Parts: sequence; structure tokens; C-alpha cells
Amino acid sequence: MGSTVKVYGMPMSTATARVLTALEEKEASYELVLVNLKTGEHKQPDHLARNPFGQVPAFEDGSLMLFESRAVARYVANKYDSGTDLLRSGDAEEAALVDVWLDVEANHFNPPTSAISLQYIIVPIFFGGVPDEKVVEENAVKLEKVLDVYEERLSKSKYLAGDSFSLADLSHLPYTYNLMKTPKASLITSRPHVNAWWEAISSRPSFQKVAAGMTLGG
Amino acid sequence: MGSTVKVYGMPMSTATARVLTALEEKEASYELVLVNLKTGEHKQPDHLARNPFGQVPAFEDGSLMLFESRAVARYVANKYDSGTDLLRSGDAEEAALVDVWLDVEANHFNPPTSAISLQYIIVPIFFGGVPDEKVVEENAVKLEKVLDVYEERLSKSKYLAGDSFSLADLSHLPYTYNLMKTPKASLITSRPHVNAWWEAISSRPSFQKVAAGMTLGG
Ligand SMILES: N[C@@H](CCC(=O)N[C@@H](CS)C(=O)NCC(=O)O)C(=O)O
Ligand SMILES: N[C@@H](CCC(=O)N[C@@H](CS)C(=O)NCC(=O)O)C(=O)O
Repeated sequence: MGSTVKVYGMPMSTATARVLTALEEKEASYELVLVNLKTGEHKQPDHLARNPFGQVPAFEDGSLMLFESRAVARYVANKYDSGTDLLRSGDAEEAALVDVWLDVEANHFNPPTSAISLQYIIVPIFFGGVPDEKVVEENAVKLEKVLDVYEERLSKSKYLAGDSFSLADLSHLPYTYNLMKTPKASLITSRPHVNAWWEAISSRPSFQKVAAGMTLGG
Repeated sequence: MGSTVKVYGMPMSTATARVLTALEEKEASYELVLVNLKTGEHKQPDHLARNPFGQVPAFEDGSLMLFESRAVARYVANKYDSGTDLLRSGDAEEAALVDVWLDVEANHFNPPTSAISLQYIIVPIFFGGVPDEKVVEENAVKLEKVLDVYEERLSKSKYLAGDSFSLADLSHLPYTYNLMKTPKASLITSRPHVNAWWEAISSRPSFQKVAAGMTLGG
């Protein structure tokens, strides 16, 4: 497995960005192979062989092919000794808290945040439509409740799983970055501890580099 | 951490059952502390201190308090040397495939399966209503596509992550068990490899024991 790993995806895709940020944190070298969502390349046989659900990203390490961005990010975090210790595996309790907050991201944070992003970013730009304000408001109410839990948690520890930046924090970066471009950015900025956390995690060089590619062009 | 771990939840709750099945597979001793969803005990301060999202299960190991059933199941799988090797951590590639299929369960399988269960099991029994057939059909269409991917996968390996039963398979047990009680059980039984897999995993003594408690009474 000395060869360079490959990520199949698009820089603007949040799930792709999650994997790229993990690779940057681990100071790994990698190749990004473009799969063009706009032309439907992700539903073609070549890509379905990489990810049977026809989504990006997919990840190749020699003969091993993986998908699901959180599983891939975990693999990356385990594979490389270099860079940030993202899983805290040396301490069973801290590692367990990383896993708890990774699941909170996937099950509580991601659904409303991605729904809001869809309305404000994807609907107007890709489908030439206008955001459905009812959908936005329903999801904003859900996200408020979730972020109230985060505010409480982040008043007690600097990062979600404890005193160190972990994969749990990292996993929030791509969608929060999109949310910050919408009128609902105030859900973050109005909560002092959540806002301080966002500023700390989003200013990391790893994500600054990945975010630079998260434009609608690519 | 020599003390017995505690699971706060209800035997009929699928997320609680996921954790209990992991404990059974690891031959761990544990105490189940009842949190009564019917009386709203999960939204009271005592339980919110265990799980700020007011859901079951929560999990206590000495001073460590965890929630999110998949994160807890992973912690259990790591904590005990006894019983089944659920995470396959000795082999980085197999461990990565366990993680991929755990994420597939959470992101692709669980949403439509839980929506169908809600309509057929929770709506009639808890709310005295009738299943919304439109919701059932929409989710059945989604689940068909997901199970087509499983059928293909399980034609190549006996279990989702390879030749051994893992946490990825285990994680599917509680909701598939509920699905099998509904008219949509045919989505499983009509697919030969999925059906054989279901029969293999659901007949494990660990799950037989947990399933015996998954009645609407408790
Ligand atoms: N749970 C998946 C989600 C992947 C996903 O939704 N990818 C999007 C781009 S961010 C995609 O491929 N969308 C196209 C589609 O679903 O058809 C993961 O985390 O990798
Ligand atoms: N993602 C959570 C889901 C937990 C969950 O949905 N628990 C249900 C019972 S199976 C519950 O507590 N429902 C009551 C509620 O959400 O208010 C996990 O896996 O632990």
C-alpha cells in the first residue's frame, strides 16, 4: 500500500470535502480524480463499481475500494501516523466520545443542515428555483434545538469530544461552511461557544485549503 | 472500570436493542435500567443528563456516560476481549469494510426501514392511527434500491463486511426484525441472498435473547 491513495469526487461536494480534510490533517499525499456530478458521471458503471449507491466520494487504496465519507475518514485517520491524532485511540474514553459526536453529526446535525443548504445553495444555482421557506424554517427549528445542545457541550470543553480537535469536529466542517453562506448563519453566530468553536475549527490550514476548492464551479 | 455497565433504555427500542445485542455478543454482564418512553421519562432532567437529545439508549461505564447506539456498540465491541470479534480491528481492510457497512446501515438502510416500521407498528399501536400508505410506498421504493445493492453484495460475501459476522450486520438486526412483522417483509424474503443473510444473523443466540424482549409491552 505504498501507492498514493485516490479520492473520486468533486471538491464542492461536502462528503468529498470531509475526506479531503481528513487527508490534509494527516499530511497524506493523495490524488483527487474528478467525477462530474453535473454530467451524471456518478451514475455510470465505472463509478457504480466504486460506490454502488452512485454517490461521491469513493476512495481507493491499492486494491481496497471504500465509500461513505465518514467510514473513509476513519480509515484515513487510522492509516497514517503523521499529522493530527483524529481518533484519540490511545484513550478508550476519549475515543468513545469522538464516536458519540461523530454519530451526533451524522444523525442530528447533518439532516437539518443539509436540508437548509439544499434550499439556499443547490435549488437556486442548480435548479434555477427559489428556496422553499417552509422547508427552511422547519429545519431551522430542528437545528436550533441541536445547536442548543452543542452550546451547552462547548461551554464545558473546547472541542466536541474534549480538549483536542478530533474527527468529530472535522466532520462538521463542510456543511457548516455551506450553512455560513446562507441567511441561517445566525444560528451559529448567535451562540457564543458554538461560534468560537466554528472559528477555531474552520481556520485550520487543512480546511482552509479544502474550502478554497468548495466553489460551485468544481 | 470493574463495575457492571448500565444501559438506560427500553427493550422494545431498536436503538436500545442494538446495544444489548452487542453486549450479548461480547458475553458481557450488564444491567438494563428502564426509561419509560410511554410516560416521557426520556425527556426528564435525569435522563437529559445522560443523553442531551432525550433519547434512549444511554450507557454508563463507571464515570463515563455515552449515548448514540452505534457509538456505544463500538465502545462495547472494543472494551471486551471476550465473545465475537465485531470490529475486525486486526485487519485494517476488513475493519474499514465494517465501517463502510455500518455507515450504509445508518445512512441508507435505516431511514426507509424506520419510516415503514413507524407506519405499521408505532402509528396503529401508539397513536391508534392507520398507516399512511403513501409514506409506506415511497419508503418501500427507496428500500428496494438499497436492498438491490445488498443482494449484489451478499452474493459475493456471506456477511456485509466479509466472511465473518461483524458489527455492521449486527446493527441491522433490530429494525429488520420490526420490518419482518410488516407486509413489507417481502422486500427481504424475495431476495435470496438478503434472506439467507437475515436468517443467519437473526438466529444468533445473542439476538434471539434480545428479540424476546422486543415486545410492545416493554
Ligand atoms: N452518506 C454519504 C453521502 C454522499 C453524498 O450524499 N454525496 C453527494 C455529494 S455531497 C452525491 O453524490 N450526490 C449525488 C447523488 O446522491 O446522486 C457519504 O457520507 O459519503
Ligand atoms: N441515533 C440514535 C437514535 C435513538 C432513538 O431514536 N431512540 C428512540 C427509541 S428507538 C427514542 O428515544 N425515541 C424517543 C424520542 O426521540 O423522543 C441512536 O442510535 O441512539
